[in-house]
Amino acid sequence: MLAMAAAELGFACHVYTPEPDSPAAAVAAKAVVEAWSDSAALAHFARGCDAITFEFENVPIATAEFLAQRRPLYPGPLSLGITQDRVSEKSFVAGLGIPIAPFAPVDSAEDLGPALGRTGRPAVLKTRRFGYDGKGQAKIDDETDPAAAWEAIGAAPAVLEAFVAFSREISVIIARARDGSLAAFDVTENRHESGILATSRVPASVDDSTAAEAVAIAGRIASALDHVGVLAVEFFVVGDGPSSRLIVNEIAPRVHNSGHWTQDAATASQFEQHIRAVAGWPLLSPRRHSEVEMMNLIGAAADGWPALAAEPDAHIHLYGKAEVRPGRKMGHVNRLRPPGTGSAWGGRDRL
Amino acid sequence: MLAMAAAELGFACHVYTPEPDSPAAAVAAKAVVEAWSDSAALAHFARGCDAITFEFENVPIATAEFLAQRRPLYPGPLSLGITQDRVSEKSFVAGLGIPIAPFAPVDSAEDLGPALGRTGRPAVLKTRRFGYDGKGQAKIDDETDPAAAWEAIGAAPAVLEAFVAFSREISVIIARARDGSLAAFDVTENRHESGILATSRVPASVDDSTAAEAVAIAGRIASALDHVGVLAVEFFVVGDGPSSRLIVNEIAPRVHNSGHWTQDAATASQFEQHIRAVAGWPLLSPRRHSEVEMMNLIGAAADGWPALAAEPDAHIHLYGKAEVRPGRKMGHVNRLRPPGTGSAWGGRDRL
Repeated sequence: MLAMAAAELGFACHVYTPEPDSPAAAVAAKAVVEAWSDSAALAHFARGCDAITFEFENVPIATAEFLAQRRPLYPGPLSLGITQDRVSEKSFVAGLGIPIAPFAPVDSAEDLGPALGRTGRPAVLKTRRFGYDGKGQAKIDDETDPAAAWEAIGAAPAVLEAFVAFSREISVIIARARDGSLAAFDVTENRHESGILATSRVPASVDDSTAAEAVAIAGRIASALDHVGVLAVEFFVVGDGPSSRLIVNEIAPRVHNSGHWTQDAATASQFEQHIRAVAGWPLLSPRRHSEVEMMNLIGAAADGWPALAAEPDAHIHLYGKAEVRPGRKMGHVNRLRPPGTGSAWGGRDRL
Repeated sequence: MLAMAAAELGFACHVYTPEPDSPAAAVAAKAVVEAWSDSAALAHFARGCDAITFEFENVPIATAEFLAQRRPLYPGPLSLGITQDRVSEKSFVAGLGIPIAPFAPVDSAEDLGPALGRTGRPAVLKTRRFGYDGKGQAKIDDETDPAAAWEAIGAAPAVLEAFVAFSREISVIIARARDGSLAAFDVTENRHESGILATSRVPASVDDSTAAEAVAIAGRIASALDHVGVLAVEFFVVGDGPSSRLIVNEIAPRVHNSGHWTQDAATASQFEQHIRAVAGWPLLSPRRHSEVEMMNLIGAAADGWPALAAEPDAHIHLYGKAEVRPGRKMGHVNRLRPPGTGSAWGGRDRL
């Protein structure tokens, strides 16, 4: 989706990926399949680029630094380094005075007792690195043996977080240009199933002041990271209405699944904003023109595309991944309705 | 733009083109550069496709028929054959009882006198085939030597059309699915310079009944051709207000430059509608969400992209063509404004 946004703006996109059959390769001017650690291939790739970006945050930091020495790389290694490690990410956010859930690093089974003393129960144990879509996570409640949770996540360096009793989850997708200017999309309300994003709805069921605060926090984080490109900040909303509080859950230094609705319901997508920022262009002023529900097509759900294709206001995006696997994101659909149809999506209503 | 719309829907696109450096190749899963007449290459290409379409109407009819015998080809050879020849196109439209300007075929310099007797002066002499963007056209007014006009268009088989004193030019972009269902975009108002489309604006300055009539005519033409895919019909509007009349100027059996605004100002683009029709999917119900002016970037005008990139509501599309040439379409920009800002674009106002 980034490669296509780049092509629309006239850029010839070169893709570097360790994965054969990358969907991006099918829509890029050039693609090479090489390892993250192959310096010769990386150097050759860099020589062929004017600017470099990444689409997921698990690019090794050494690879990012190698490329950043040769060509403008946005977002920079700082954004990548901080968000690759949950402890450094949480420390960074907390250091900005932004509310997050109590947490403690856990480097061994022995650390778990003191960490639970800090967070209380229930709590969630998460690997520090390479976790996504609910992988590498284990909940610890009153009945859980902490040692079993430690084994469940693979006995890897971890962080324990207090479980937040939230009323809803929201996210802010914000773009930051090279000159520091910011442009945020409307706040998005997210629902997860089994740790994987299931739906995103806009407008979110939060009051205006909560939405404005979320956007302001996302802007502070992006600026503090000197981030260039799109950044996503996921929040827990605790309580309801004007007295609700926001807690930052997670940061992603990239375009984000909860921003996929912008492709069809806003005048500019997160993908175009990201490419503009990376290329040093000014940002657009995206305006949301429709109400929208984004639904992920996970695993075999993608086989339901014919019914979705028959809905006159359902905008389907299929990624062209060769193999359907359980839990794998195969595509998404943005269901639109005209603005003002409802004040918000509310509880569990569906289009 | 078609290839990217197809990729969004999960299709792997194969491009067949006689042109090296085709911009489509950079966003397609596969591209081959071969001649239109190379049967072996065409047969190989067809074997690799589930359905085939074209992006311009000058594909030789023999090529289209060769492919149509092997795979579903949409639009079919009928749409292509009729619209490749201005005389057959005009006869076809006139045969449906739809108003067009008086015309006469001109196969030799000797035909010009009787033809002018039928059309009167001023008139426009156009080659029957392969004309586009004002190429192969010559106006004949009171001072013109008809023989000079005949030479000017290359002494090729031609058609003479009565010059229409129009108040404005509009077009309808309509999609027709395999099951015959239709979906039209809002009527577009076009301004040409030197025979090349300069701008398209929506909403058009025509009253509702004129707009509805234009859409109805486009639907009749699409249905009569048994067209599958997007079709563009260009009209002259004669007179103003409710008493204005519509005259069909030209048909294009494909996505059309005057429909490029749909990429940014409607909930579905002409490109997606075309791919859906070709693939046998149902059509979407596109809704225009913004007022829009599409401006073509022709020749060196594309060098003005930095100023356009700095406009917060200007959506730039650059085609990645390697060489800037005078009169060559290098890209376009869609300038948006919220709906209801003005009732129509009016005379020569600009965003």
